Amino acid sequence: MKDFTALRAVHQLQDLAKRPYDLTSDNALTVQRLETFKTSMCGFDLLYATQRVDENILKALQELADEAGLVEALAAMQTGAVLNRIEGYASEDRQVLHTACRDIFTESPMAGDASAKAQRELAKLQSFLDELADGTVVNQAGQPFSTMVQVGIGGSDLGPRAICLALKAYSLPGRSAQFIANVDPDDAAEVLQELDLSTTLFNIVSKSGTTLETLTNEQLIRDSLIKAGLDPAHHVLAVTGEGSPMDDPSRYLRSFYMEDYIGGRYSATSMVGVVTLGFVLGFAAVMEFLKGAHEVDRAALQPAVRSNIPLLLALLGIWNHNFLGYPTVAILPYSQALSRFPAHLQQCDMESNGKSVTRQGREVAWKTGPVVWGEPGTNGQHAFYQLIHQGTEVVPVEFIGFRQSRYGVDVMIEGTSSQQKLVANMLAQSLALAMGKDDENPARRFQGNRPNSVLLADRLTPRSMGSLLAMYEHKIAFQGFCWHINSFDQEGVQLGKVLAQQLLSILTQPDNQYGEEVLGKQMLRIAGLY
Amino acid sequence: MKDFTALRAVHQLQDLAKRPYDLTSDNALTVQRLETFKTSMCGFDLLYATQRVDENILKALQELADEAGLVEALAAMQTGAVLNRIEGYASEDRQVLHTACRDIFTESPMAGDASAKAQRELAKLQSFLDELADGTVVNQAGQPFSTMVQVGIGGSDLGPRAICLALKAYSLPGRSAQFIANVDPDDAAEVLQELDLSTTLFNIVSKSGTTLETLTNEQLIRDSLIKAGLDPAHHVLAVTGEGSPMDDPSRYLRSFYMEDYIGGRYSATSMVGVVTLGFVLGFAAVMEFLKGAHEVDRAALQPAVRSNIPLLLALLGIWNHNFLGYPTVAILPYSQALSRFPAHLQQCDMESNGKSVTRQGREVAWKTGPVVWGEPGTNGQHAFYQLIHQGTEVVPVEFIGFRQSRYGVDVMIEGTSSQQKLVANMLAQSLALAMGKDDENPARRFQGNRPNSVLLADRLTPRSMGSLLAMYEHKIAFQGFCWHINSFDQEGVQLGKVLAQQLLSILTQPDNQYGEEVLGKQMLRIAGLY
Repeated sequence: MKDFTALRAVHQLQDLAKRPYDLTSDNALTVQRLETFKTSMCGFDLLYATQRVDENILKALQELADEAGLVEALAAMQTGAVLNRIEGYASEDRQVLHTACRDIFTESPMAGDASAKAQRELAKLQSFLDELADGTVVNQAGQPFSTMVQVGIGGSDLGPRAICLALKAYSLPGRSAQFIANVDPDDAAEVLQELDLSTTLFNIVSKSGTTLETLTNEQLIRDSLIKAGLDPAHHVLAVTGEGSPMDDPSRYLRSFYMEDYIGGRYSATSMVGVVTLGFVLGFAAVMEFLKGAHEVDRAALQPAVRSNIPLLLALLGIWNHNFLGYPTVAILPYSQALSRFPAHLQQCDMESNGKSVTRQGREVAWKTGPVVWGEPGTNGQHAFYQLIHQGTEVVPVEFIGFRQSRYGVDVMIEGTSSQQKLVANMLAQSLALAMGKDDENPARRFQGNRPNSVLLADRLTPRSMGSLLAMYEHKIAFQGFCWHINSFDQEGVQLGKVLAQQLLSILTQPDNQYGEEVLGKQMLRIAGLY
Repeated sequence: MKDFTALRAVHQLQDLAKRPYDLTSDNALTVQRLETFKTSMCGFDLLYATQRVDENILKALQELADEAGLVEALAAMQTGAVLNRIEGYASEDRQVLHTACRDIFTESPMAGDASAKAQRELAKLQSFLDELADGTVVNQAGQPFSTMVQVGIGGSDLGPRAICLALKAYSLPGRSAQFIANVDPDDAAEVLQELDLSTTLFNIVSKSGTTLETLTNEQLIRDSLIKAGLDPAHHVLAVTGEGSPMDDPSRYLRSFYMEDYIGGRYSATSMVGVVTLGFVLGFAAVMEFLKGAHEVDRAALQPAVRSNIPLLLALLGIWNHNFLGYPTVAILPYSQALSRFPAHLQQCDMESNGKSVTRQGREVAWKTGPVVWGEPGTNGQHAFYQLIHQGTEVVPVEFIGFRQSRYGVDVMIEGTSSQQKLVANMLAQSLALAMGKDDENPARRFQGNRPNSVLLADRLTPRSMGSLLAMYEHKIAFQGFCWHINSFDQEGVQLGKVLAQQLLSILTQPDNQYGEEVLGKQMLRIAGLY
């Protein structure tokens, strides 16, 4: 693989970026353009006529994909290549095999051993869920468990939380999920005070088994259980790496394993994500979710950019970020159910691609990952859309929507349903951002040329949720391959951890005063904490 | 007021920006610097030694504040100047008087009529809350009401929701709040299915009384109440403008008014915010909240930049955005209770300052509002902080923290409490971002010089919440004054609304096919909606 700026297609695109497609000119948006710049995959349509691209630019983006070997790299990832590494330097040196968690539907998985391990954990989950359903596993008073609280942070929280929330409409009767993440003691306090502990299971999730926040919250929970006269070993589950400090079945009702080749931010389809999901929705829904993801894993290996939604999303993102120079991207789902999905993608994208060195450890001379942010529409229309339409910062937008609601509870007003209003608003925003509008009142002018695309499916279900998740995972991976960075490590979180430990050791040993800790000590004093 | 680029101080700052303070050099961060670059106001400390400023830059920022007349403009706002206008063009032409809602603690309010109106509505709220407490107002079965569901969107949702969530720890026994905002029918369906309608009040909030989303959800709620055999007029409240289409007391249990000089995004201290807050926390807490805001309103009129936190936050933001060129700002509260506060500030800031024309309707030749985003720490440390530390986009950060938790439920592990771990992590991140760290492994290098500040108070209470809110409202207003834009209109939301109406009219009259609607019709067809 080559450095980004060493690619021929990059130079071609720099040239094309001097005259990006003008969406505001007369007849820029024709019916033919709407039809041509549309593609479909695994139940999703992507409408991208409102991006600042034309046939030449798309051709150059295809050349970029080919020259950088993006699809080959994703295939290598899925077959178990050691992609989580920096050549010549100490690094995690691992495979990247989250796709194996869902490569369980064919006779010939791309990474057989990893898929076999995933199958083994899924079988354990299935029997556990069966035992909960048939009354074999009940609380000490013989009652069924009604709530599962997932305790994890980062990748052990954001994806699983976003997906459980998204699919809440499909919950089994009497089952629900809660989440605790923050080391802030108010987080656990607020969740715990509203629970009946006696019918609650706690699912403690930490790959390393050493995550400060998670272990702290686990302790707080075990204390609460004991105080309520309950046996923690009967209420607490573990999802962790085999052999981690948390891998101690005597302390947990059940233990599920995750492998070190599954990064936290890519772990939503591993046990990290599917234990709580299975508790709430049942095992069949978990399998649908995995199936949706798996279908996209395979479809994402299609080399034609215009038939491959994650690849196209990746390249349109690179066009907007590296060539048109826009520093952020907003992900705006027109679905309240997806209200936390942008937060998951923010983590998955920014932790993967917020890097400054290449796979060979050289400093990059080009932009890598953008700032990713977003909130659901139509809410955002009454909030930050003002800046998106008329501000001095141009924000590329990725809309996500569904033709039907999950619950089917709706009301007709002025001849249209709420769901129709929701989707019509999304499409209207897409057109408004692209086309803009002139006005003799300068405060009512809209510049237009604000690039955006619309990703649309029939309905948010376990299966389409799985597909949507995998599309974004691969969009992010494709971009990382193209920028020639390691999207699978997270060295940037270390320094803050080390400094926090130093400050905490000053708090426990305030008389110690030496070396670089002096500044931290003064910081604590000046902040009024010591 | 002058254009931003016509200010002498701006040219001086452009010059100073060629050599911003280098936080990574040896001894850049001394104890003396930590102590000097700290200020206090209304119970909050601001630590800003980790910004890229020195004495000269701060002096130039003071000159900018003076030359642009920022404090004078805020005083004019608070006394009722017509600041919501564009000279020479049609505009809202209104006063901006959200501060009057809390200017109720002295004999001489700055805008007497507006404060008298606020007092009148507060008195109505107080008697209503008394009647709920003493059993005068009960449901048709004689039971007390336990839940209030606020139905509103944008400013009628984000601020009130963020603040209710922040102060949940102080709820009256048996009282809670829920929120419905989105036109997505799944939003209302999910909230309604978990409620006992018979003991629920619905607080419908729309200043204009014409907000599509809110009226649609009100209809859905009235249908549900009737279906449950309940009388909507006994369960539904209104907060709206006097004389709006919703101002019809026969249809509502109670009606509270808001004035047209209070913008939606600045309405959290008006009836828009305090009715639900008062239901959950009681009237005394509402008064504390207003008091905290009022104290900051007055303190923000202090002209010395280094003694005025909102002014200093505004100018540091301008330094980072206009002079150092950073397009976004992250607001990262180390408090799970403030988990939705960044979303409120995102609206308040981006809708206020995402503008491209001056107060005289000329196109700006400088950057206005940044993209504002954020999530609570420590959660974010396990997510997007990777990019903040090591990405190619530099993100200025505003940390917010508290020395004590709200609930006081905590656990000691390795000699420190969770609350200590929380605050130590925040301070450690502040230092790490500023100082960076070299390493022989390039993937473990931290560039540093990532500007940030820490805003710190003892505890999140109704009073400190009010102060925090007002600090950010005035930060935003000061920046808008400095950029010479109208921070109080929102013309940018109109185009999308108009186009959405066009698309909806196509859906109800599909045979109509003329003029510019053709494109919308084809968009609907291609999206599979027609």
